[in-house]
Amino acid sequence: MSILVVGTVAFDSIETPSGSAERVLGGSASYFAVAASFFAPVQIVGVVGEDFPKEYLDLFTHRGIDLKGVRREAGATFHWRGRYHEDLNVRDTVELHLNVLSGFVPRLPEPYRDSEYVFLGNIDPQMQLQVLDQLRSFRLVACDTMDHWIQGSDRELRRVLGRIEMLVINDSEARLLSGEHNIVRAARSILKMGPKTVLIKRGEYGVLQFSDSAVFAVPAYPLEEVFDPTGAGDSFAGGFLGQLARSGDQSQGGLRRAIVYGSVVASFAVEDFGLKRLNSLSRDEIEERYRRFVKLTDFHS
Amino acid sequence: MSILVVGTVAFDSIETPSGSAERVLGGSASYFAVAASFFAPVQIVGVVGEDFPKEYLDLFTHRGIDLKGVRREAGATFHWRGRYHEDLNVRDTVELHLNVLSGFVPRLPEPYRDSEYVFLGNIDPQMQLQVLDQLRSFRLVACDTMDHWIQGSDRELRRVLGRIEMLVINDSEARLLSGEHNIVRAARSILKMGPKTVLIKRGEYGVLQFSDSAVFAVPAYPLEEVFDPTGAGDSFAGGFLGQLARSGDQSQGGLRRAIVYGSVVASFAVEDFGLKRLNSLSRDEIEERYRRFVKLTDFHS
Repeated sequence: MSILVVGTVAFDSIETPSGSAERVLGGSASYFAVAASFFAPVQIVGVVGEDFPKEYLDLFTHRGIDLKGVRREAGATFHWRGRYHEDLNVRDTVELHLNVLSGFVPRLPEPYRDSEYVFLGNIDPQMQLQVLDQLRSFRLVACDTMDHWIQGSDRELRRVLGRIEMLVINDSEARLLSGEHNIVRAARSILKMGPKTVLIKRGEYGVLQFSDSAVFAVPAYPLEEVFDPTGAGDSFAGGFLGQLARSGDQSQGGLRRAIVYGSVVASFAVEDFGLKRLNSLSRDEIEERYRRFVKLTDFHS
Repeated sequence: MSILVVGTVAFDSIETPSGSAERVLGGSASYFAVAASFFAPVQIVGVVGEDFPKEYLDLFTHRGIDLKGVRREAGATFHWRGRYHEDLNVRDTVELHLNVLSGFVPRLPEPYRDSEYVFLGNIDPQMQLQVLDQLRSFRLVACDTMDHWIQGSDRELRRVLGRIEMLVINDSEARLLSGEHNIVRAARSILKMGPKTVLIKRGEYGVLQFSDSAVFAVPAYPLEEVFDPTGAGDSFAGGFLGQLARSGDQSQGGLRRAIVYGSVVASFAVEDFGLKRLNSLSRDEIEERYRRFVKLTDFHS
């Protein structure tokens, strides 16, 4: 079962307490796609500029990722520059150049219109709606968003939420979207907006999953070194949807195990700058850390 | 197996976004003792002033808590006044009157000197050392501390840490004590100071347990309403040590289940002001929420 992701493919310039990296491969679709590719075939829809190097495209194709939906347009690639605080949960956006992303209209190659698993990465809700309009049949659509769209495109975002199955957002975004400070109330309020499942990412504190009938709470994998949290959320989403696509198991148990796989992939993603760690990762390492995760959290036996 | 707790018995005046309470029963020993009393017999060593009302003492005796070690001295009872922010993880101490607590020298009634389970609540490390000097034999000593002692009584605190089995502190205290921002490194560094086990309380995000050979991570029980976080940490410690005393099981599995029991009791403690909720709590409610906690976190089946 293949997975379609629509989102940004970008240059990231990153500064963390552990060091810095200039114009490395980034963007929501990039992290999601590489993370998901350990589990299932992945197709990206996105846009890059004339300055986007072949070696970055090769990173995708080496992992078997289908780039037929990635258009190259005149102009420069989307570029984000961010700086993390000593507390890695806090970051400042220093520069943001939309470049070719502004005015981008996602167009799905014909075969992608029947994708079973779809992830709408963090882009303009208007673009997310354009993707939804092009889908013919699908099994599951999950989406991400951010404070910028919650504040500026509330109407469009609400329309997206009415049409998708799952929302994957972080805790501060959940609070902003719902107007509720308490995270349980925030999730319950978001469930009323449409999604059947809300996944709330809490960074180093783990993930909460809410549906009408169940709540699941899981901690993050504790790490001695976090080099770069960039892309952790999209790597989580990629591992999560990847495992769902691999297993085809959308039972509560299947969702929970997929959340743990997502957490495992995210824990690798933050161990080095950009996509570096994910690009050297193996399936065996993922399975090995999944087993450690079981031991880390098990008090049931 | 009975449990001895040495700590504060206090008046707390509390303001939270949900309301306020004036001079209610508080203090580390009070929360710990009531929480632990659901699992095992508890003895308190502490001090109160002439103004301490009989009805507050009755709250302990109704739960079978042994008060032979609580001295009443000339002067006023220790009084803390605090205010919580909208983000309940942040609180300000508005007033702090040590009163009879200043110059207090804990004296253990003769039979207490053979207590098997001992909790040294958050008091002056000098007093914690005085308690350790009076213990003849014991199975397990756990202790708590806070930023004030870490910064002002480092030498005494290090001596305490060299003589105890377990340290139970929150994440910001762990960072301060170790000088490490990363919480895994912080815990590893504290293990080198003496304790065999370090429990790191992360409030609404749960608990991490570290020993040389194992790590355990567990989320907190998600609540729709948190009225008053005061005493959550001591209620956790009380439920934790209470369950250890009840089960006598200090295996890794036994420790983990005790951590979950502690989390369950703490989740009740914050549902109302002061000790109100714990005083109306039943053993059945604890067991029922423990089972919910298993369902909340289980992805292993």
